[in-house]
This record gives sequence, structure tokens and C-alpha cells, in this order.
Amino acid sequence: MTRKLRSSGISRRAVLSTVAALPILSTPVLRTSGLAQTSDPLPSWNNGVAKETIIGFVQASVDRSSRTFVPPEARIATFDQDGTLWVEHPMYTQVMYCLERVPMVVKEKPQLRERQPFKTILSGDREAIAKLSLHELEEVLFATLTGMTVEQFNAEAKAWIQSAKHPRWDKPYTDLTYQPMQEVLRYLRANGYETYIVTGGGQDFVRVYSEQVYGIPPEQIVGTAGGTTFGYGKDGNPTLTKEPKLLLNDDNAGKPEGIHLMIGRRPYASFGNSTGDRQMLEYTWAGDGPRLAMLVLHDDAKREYAYGPAQGLADSKVGTFTQALYDEAKERGWTVISMKDDWNRIFAFEGTGSRALQ
Amino acid sequence: MTRKLRSSGISRRAVLSTVAALPILSTPVLRTSGLAQTSDPLPSWNNGVAKETIIGFVQASVDRSSRTFVPPEARIATFDQDGTLWVEHPMYTQVMYCLERVPMVVKEKPQLRERQPFKTILSGDREAIAKLSLHELEEVLFATLTGMTVEQFNAEAKAWIQSAKHPRWDKPYTDLTYQPMQEVLRYLRANGYETYIVTGGGQDFVRVYSEQVYGIPPEQIVGTAGGTTFGYGKDGNPTLTKEPKLLLNDDNAGKPEGIHLMIGRRPYASFGNSTGDRQMLEYTWAGDGPRLAMLVLHDDAKREYAYGPAQGLADSKVGTFTQALYDEAKERGWTVISMKDDWNRIFAFEGTGSRALQ
Repeated sequence: MTRKLRSSGISRRAVLSTVAALPILSTPVLRTSGLAQTSDPLPSWNNGVAKETIIGFVQASVDRSSRTFVPPEARIATFDQDGTLWVEHPMYTQVMYCLERVPMVVKEKPQLRERQPFKTILSGDREAIAKLSLHELEEVLFATLTGMTVEQFNAEAKAWIQSAKHPRWDKPYTDLTYQPMQEVLRYLRANGYETYIVTGGGQDFVRVYSEQVYGIPPEQIVGTAGGTTFGYGKDGNPTLTKEPKLLLNDDNAGKPEGIHLMIGRRPYASFGNSTGDRQMLEYTWAGDGPRLAMLVLHDDAKREYAYGPAQGLADSKVGTFTQALYDEAKERGWTVISMKDDWNRIFAFEGTGSRALQ
Repeated sequence: MTRKLRSSGISRRAVLSTVAALPILSTPVLRTSGLAQTSDPLPSWNNGVAKETIIGFVQASVDRSSRTFVPPEARIATFDQDGTLWVEHPMYTQVMYCLERVPMVVKEKPQLRERQPFKTILSGDREAIAKLSLHELEEVLFATLTGMTVEQFNAEAKAWIQSAKHPRWDKPYTDLTYQPMQEVLRYLRANGYETYIVTGGGQDFVRVYSEQVYGIPPEQIVGTAGGTTFGYGKDGNPTLTKEPKLLLNDDNAGKPEGIHLMIGRRPYASFGNSTGDRQMLEYTWAGDGPRLAMLVLHDDAKREYAYGPAQGLADSKVGTFTQALYDEAKERGWTVISMKDDWNRIFAFEGTGSRALQ
């Protein structure tokens, strides 16, 4: 339920005018839509509170005659990425990138081969890798994400993201975005919202694929960011080199801080799925007027994963959704999205046959 | 002259179609235009190399049939503010803000009254104030720009900018933007460019008025930025407090570094006026395809100010344009804008009568 506002049903005309405003792209939502579905901006969502809340929020904020109207220039929506827009289990995609890049780094710097944590990672011993300390993981991140120019990094990350595959589905990670959330991104943009990703992941990493995968340009990615240093290459041309110096740790309290740094406005809508998103949702929710705060609960082991530990789900180090966060959501009036109950389809590649729950 | 491209004259049809794409706003450029001027997107510019270079660059980059075409999503233009978009003499506007805010700060913290540099500033002794060290000025900046919530800062800065006046013109600082550059901003935006301010000034300060003054929203301001800290107020609501911690010193090499952090793409066009803009222009110029790099030379003591020390103009600590920068511009093929010769009108309040040089 949006704050200070009940979503009391939406007129068919309002929905149709929204769809008419959608950019004409060959996206799954339009490709697969028959006449009946054309009026539904969120076809992968089952009817229920979550879907009604999103549509009610949008309708309230674009209605010029209402006191809940949000001026177009203020329409900012922020989305966590890992676990909110795409799969984060069994491990964050960027951590997979860093681990898989270790052999290349060791080839360039052979002295690392016998040093920890590189030796453990090269051993391929999954149990030992899982036990690496935070400090050791940071060493891997710095070694694999810094020390090269921005262009070199972009080229390497792009090559990896185009070829790497998720072990469970044997598909590119970029195929594992959630179709219902892709629909929300497009629906908000069609209604004048700027959609930002606000991620604990690396800003430069996400920028490599965000435009192609989400339709979100590099300048609308807020993420954990390291510094760069301006200099000149051997050819005399200017270069920006990625440095092992953390400028913004874009997680927990760092999310609203990063939003202020990079956007400078409070969002009207925020989506997350874990304790790292709590402060972003609190910051969003504390503003005046209509606000939307939603959390994805991974409660679908069959189609994706099930973890919390909220609501008795399995505990998880990756994308932790605590019972305290669940209770805070309920108390404040945020909406918890049940992946199992609210989404009739999770991935675009599923087709539209699995609408059993609708 | 744009790189790898001579601006060999522009067809009348091309210019007309550009004007047709301009948003219909009651801006000076449209309000004052008769039929003849309607075809000119830059009426405050005298005919000459500078004006031709801007129009040639835009035409080349929007021509789909040309190999100089720039895809719409890549159209980024960056502008220094002080001395490029508005007056910076005798002192940067934000420094005036900080100095004028000292009495209020001392009222809140009386223990500062007898301490330096606050004592000197309160004395009003201009010569002594001009001699303050960089370290002392930094202390003033931290005392006046940090330690409050983002909302408090915004309210205070907004109240000041609405009431403070420039000593020479006795007009609000926001009236002292350069009309020719306002036309460039609108002309670029009408042709699909996103226009960013990239300033050594404070990011939060410029954001307070940028949308109203330049039509540039807060998220398109890249500036010197301090950190904020997320917390909770007495009412339990989330707050962001501005901290005396420098995250980005957005000047010199910090400009391309800030552009990467905040935008993540290399600009196609950059405008500056001092040595602090050199690296931004070098970074812009080093990219492929059509590029625009321009520097405003303040050589008009009568209508504005004259300072360099390039070209034998007076030396200046504020907005220094060295001969070395001038020589680099000529060598690389950047365009130097002569305020005296290239602009037939400097401020909107001048009206359109002063076109003697055209």
C-alpha cells in the first residue's frame, strides 16, 4: 500500500493511456501481448496487493488534478540490483567475475601464484574459497578490478559478461533478470520516472551491461565506486586508471549517501531485497507525498531460490532478508513481494505458459 | 574548429530544422526573436569561427547519414560554471556565500568569534581577507558548508542566492549568467545532448539553483563533493548530514575523474575558461569522432572583466587562463572564445540593442 494513499482501483482508460505511452520496442512484454494483455503494464505479476500497489502509486503520482501529483522532474525511482533485478545466488555475479579473473591476474603477476588468497582460489577448492575472510576477498577485488585503465576494465568485463554462464541455468547471467521487474522499470519510465540502479556492486561493472540489459544508461548507475587517477599514456593521450581506493561503499547507509552524491534528490520509489537496502527504503519513505517502498522476498526454491532468514526461510550470507527487516516493512507499510505468489513468470526465457498462479 | 572536421558552412535548411526542434519555452532567445533571428540558434553570438564551430559540431553529430554521427545516448556535453556560464570576478559566488555566512555561524558557535580566520572575516577588512591562506579558507568552507542536514543547507543556500547581489551590477548573481552560453546549452539540448555542469564549486551549492537558472537538474551537476552521513533525527526520521570530508575535488585532474565517477561516459563537447578545465578538455578531445573543446577568454573589461594572464591580459588568481593553456588550445585545435569579439550580448538584462559588433 502506498503511504497516505489507498490504491482504490485504476480506471481502464488510465491504464490504456499508460500503455499508449510505452516506447515501441520489441520487448517481451509487447511481443507476447495479445489484445487482452495490452491493457496490463505488468503481465508477469499476479493480481494482488503488490501489483495493485505499484499501479496505484504510479496513477496517483501522474494525476495532475490530484494533490499526490509528482512533478515530472522529481520522478526518481531507485532499484537495488542483486536479488532485486536479477539472480544473486549462489553468489553475486561480480564476485564470480573477480574469482574467474584470478588466473589472468596471476598470469600477469606470477608472484601472486603462491600467495594467499590467490593460491586458494586457483586451487578451485570451493569450501576453502567460501571460508575466505572479508579482508582476503577485498584483496581479490582490488587485484581484479583496479590497476588498469577504464577502457581496459570495460573491455574485459564486457567480454566476460557476454560469455560467462550461471551454473544452474547454464545461461548468461544477463538472461537471469526478473521479467516482472523489467516490466516495472519500463512501466515507471513510460510514466516519466528516471530509473536508477543503486547497488552494492561495483558501479563500473554494472555500467558495462546496464544499458543493454535494463535500458539504464551508465549515468544512472549508483554503485560502490573506487577512485580513478587521470594521467597520460605512452602515446600522450589522457587516461583514467582505476585505483584501489574506495570512494563510496554503496550499501546500507551508503545507499542514501550515494543517492545524494550521485542524484541529489530523494527518490519517490525504491525497490530492494535485503538488509543492505533498509536505509534506502527508509530515506525514500520519509519524503512527502506518494511513496513506494518494496522488498522482494525470495520464497520460491522451485523456480529460483528460497532464503531469508525472514519467515522461517533458510539463512543466507548472500542477500540476507532478516525477520527484523520483514517486521519493519510490515510496521511501516512497505510492501513485501512474494516471488512465489506475486510473480507468474520469473525469467523472460520461460515464455508465458507458466501462469498457473494467476 | 572541430577535430577531424572542418565546419565548411551550414545549410539554411539544417539550421531551420534545428530551430524547429527547440522546445517552445518563453526564453529570451525566442521571446526577442523576429523572423530573421528565428533561424539562428545562437543570436547573441557574432558570426565568426567560434559560432561556426559550435553549429558545425552539432550539425555533424546529428547527421545520421554521416560517419560523424553521434548516437543520441552518447551525446554528453560538460560545462565549467564559474567564468564559463556566469561571472566569477571579483570572487567566486560560493566563496561570497561562505564569507557572508560567517556571522550566522559565529552566532551559533560564539567560541569562533575570537578565533582566526573568523575574526578577520568579521572585521570586514578586505585586504586582510584577501590574504587568508588556503588552509584558513578551507576552515571557513567547512564551517559554513558542513555540519547541517542536506535540507538545512539547501534552505540556507536558496535563501541567500535569492537575495544576495553582485557588487558591480547590483543584481542577483543568478542574473549574471552569460546569455550566449545559455543559448549554447539550449541549442545542445534541443539536439539531444545532455548538458552537465562540471564545476570546481560545491556540487550541493550549484544544485540549489541550477534547474531554475540553467535548466540543468541536480543529477546533472558534477562538482566538488563532501561526504554525508546517514542517521536519524530526534523525530526518528532519516537524515543526511553534510560532513567536512572531501570525496571529490572536482578541479584540474579531478574534472575527468569526476566525470567518470558521476557520468561514466566521455563527453563529446566541453567548455571551460581556466587552467582548472585543461584536463577535462584534453579528456573530451581524446575521444573518437567529432569533438568540441572551447575556452572562454575574458578580454572585455568594459562589459565584464579582462584577465588571463594569457595574451597579455592582467594576471588573476580567480579563473586563471595562462598563456600555456592558450598555446595548448591553439596547438590542439581547440577554439578560444573572445568575449569581446564573439559575443554581441553578454547578459540577458542587456536587451538586444548592443549588437554593434555584429
